[in-house]
Amino acid sequence: MTYCVGLLLDAGIVLLSDTRTNAGLDNIATYRKMFLFEEPGERAIGIMTAGSLSITQTTMARLTDAIEEGDSPKSIMHAPTMLQVAEIVGGMLSDVTSEVSAKMERMSQNATASMIVAGQRNGGPMRMFLIYPEGNFIEATADTPFLQIGEHKYGKPILDRVIAPGTSLADAEKAVLLSMDSTLRSNLSVGMPLDFAVIEANSLEISRRRRIEADDEGFSRMSAAWSEALRNAFQQIDPI
Amino acid sequence: MTYCVGLLLDAGIVLLSDTRTNAGLDNIATYRKMFLFEEPGERAIGIMTAGSLSITQTTMARLTDAIEEGDSPKSIMHAPTMLQVAEIVGGMLSDVTSEVSAKMERMSQNATASMIVAGQRNGGPMRMFLIYPEGNFIEATADTPFLQIGEHKYGKPILDRVIAPGTSLADAEKAVLLSMDSTLRSNLSVGMPLDFAVIEANSLEISRRRRIEADDEGFSRMSAAWSEALRNAFQQIDPI
Repeated sequence: MTYCVGLLLDAGIVLLSDTRTNAGLDNIATYRKMFLFEEPGERAIGIMTAGSLSITQTTMARLTDAIEEGDSPKSIMHAPTMLQVAEIVGGMLSDVTSEVSAKMERMSQNATASMIVAGQRNGGPMRMFLIYPEGNFIEATADTPFLQIGEHKYGKPILDRVIAPGTSLADAEKAVLLSMDSTLRSNLSVGMPLDFAVIEANSLEISRRRRIEADDEGFSRMSAAWSEALRNAFQQIDPI
Repeated sequence: MTYCVGLLLDAGIVLLSDTRTNAGLDNIATYRKMFLFEEPGERAIGIMTAGSLSITQTTMARLTDAIEEGDSPKSIMHAPTMLQVAEIVGGMLSDVTSEVSAKMERMSQNATASMIVAGQRNGGPMRMFLIYPEGNFIEATADTPFLQIGEHKYGKPILDRVIAPGTSLADAEKAVLLSMDSTLRSNLSVGMPLDFAVIEANSLEISRRRRIEADDEGFSRMSAAWSEALRNAFQQIDPI
C-alpha cells in the first residue's frame, strides 16, 4: 500500500509520499515513490506513484528515457504546458497498464497504478493532476486544493479541516506530515521513510527536498506532540 | 454506506450507528441500523448492521420472529451465553446471505452484510462480536476494545488515540460521536440521524438510548468545538 498527498496552494506545491512496497505481508521493501524533475528557472515537476510497482517503475523508466532522448515529444521536460505533461504521463501510464494487464489477465490477475503530477513551467501557472490507471485525470482547484493516492482515508480529516489555498507552506508541511502520521498509525503497509518536497510558487525549482528517516527526531516529536494535543483537545470538549 | 462503532469497556458497552441507506446516489433513505433487545435484570443485547438492506432486514426479521416464537433454539433471548447469541446471529446472517446470493448471482450481482453483536447475560461477562457476511466472527478484547463496520477508516484515528478498556462512559460517548463526526464530514453516504445506546456493566438493561437528530444542538456544538480544538491543537504543533 501507499500514501501520497499533494497540495496546490497559493504559496506553492507541497508533496509527501511514503516508501513502503509490499508483495504480500512477508515481502516488504522500500522504494521511492516521489520523482522530482527540474530545470531551474524553466520548470519544476514532481510525480508521485501508487499501485503496482511493475507498472509505476516501467512508466517512470519510460518517462526518464524520453527525457534523456531529448527532444522527444514524450519528454515532460519539453512539453509546453503542465496540461501536456499530465497528458504525456497519462498516456504512458495507460500504455504500460494495458501491456501489463494483457499479461496479467492470462493469470486472472489485475494490476493498476495511479499518479499525482504537479509542477510549474515558466510563464504558466502551478498545476496539479491526479492521473487514473486508465490515463485520464482530474485537476486540483481552489475548491479542492489537495489530491491523495493510495490509502487516503485515515489522513483526510486533518486536511479537510486545515488546508485551504491560502495555507502557508509551514502549516502545509505540518498538515501533510500529520496526515501521514495518522495513516502510518492505522495502516501497517504504509511506512517510513518519507519523501517530502516543496516547489515554491514561481520559483521554477525544487525549493526543498527532504527524506525523513524512520528515526527522525523531529518527526517523532511532532507525532508525539500531536497525540498529546489531540488528547488534550478531546478532554476540552463538552459532552452533548 | 454505513458507519457503526461499538466499544467494549470495563464500564460498559457503547454503541453508535448512522441511519443512511442508499441505492444509488439518487435514492437515499433513513433506516434504523441499531436494534436493542432487553429483558431487564436478565440480559441486554445490541445489534448493529451494515451492508445490503435486503439482507440485514431479513436477518433482523427472522431474529425477531424467533424471539416471538418463544422457546425456539434460534431465540437470542433464550441463548445461554453471548457466544451462542453470536452463533445464532452468524448462522442466520449466513443463511440469508446464501439465499439472497443465489438469486443475485443470476443477475451477476452480489450482496453482503456484516453486524456487530454486543451484550451481557446474567452471570456472564459483557462480550462484543463482529459478524462477517459468511457468519463467522471475531470478538473485541482488552487489546482491541472497539469494533467498526461500514465506512470505518475516517473515524478510526480518534478511537486509536483515545479508547482503552478503562475509558469512562462519558469519554466513550464523546469519542464515538467525534469518530462519527469525522466520518459524516468525509463520506456523504453516512448520514444523520444517529442512534446511540449504552449498556452499563452488570446493569443487564439498556441503560441509555437516544436518537440524535440532524438538528441536534448539542451534536452541532460538539462538532464545531472539535473542529476549533483541532485547529488550535494544529497551531500549537511545532514544525519538524
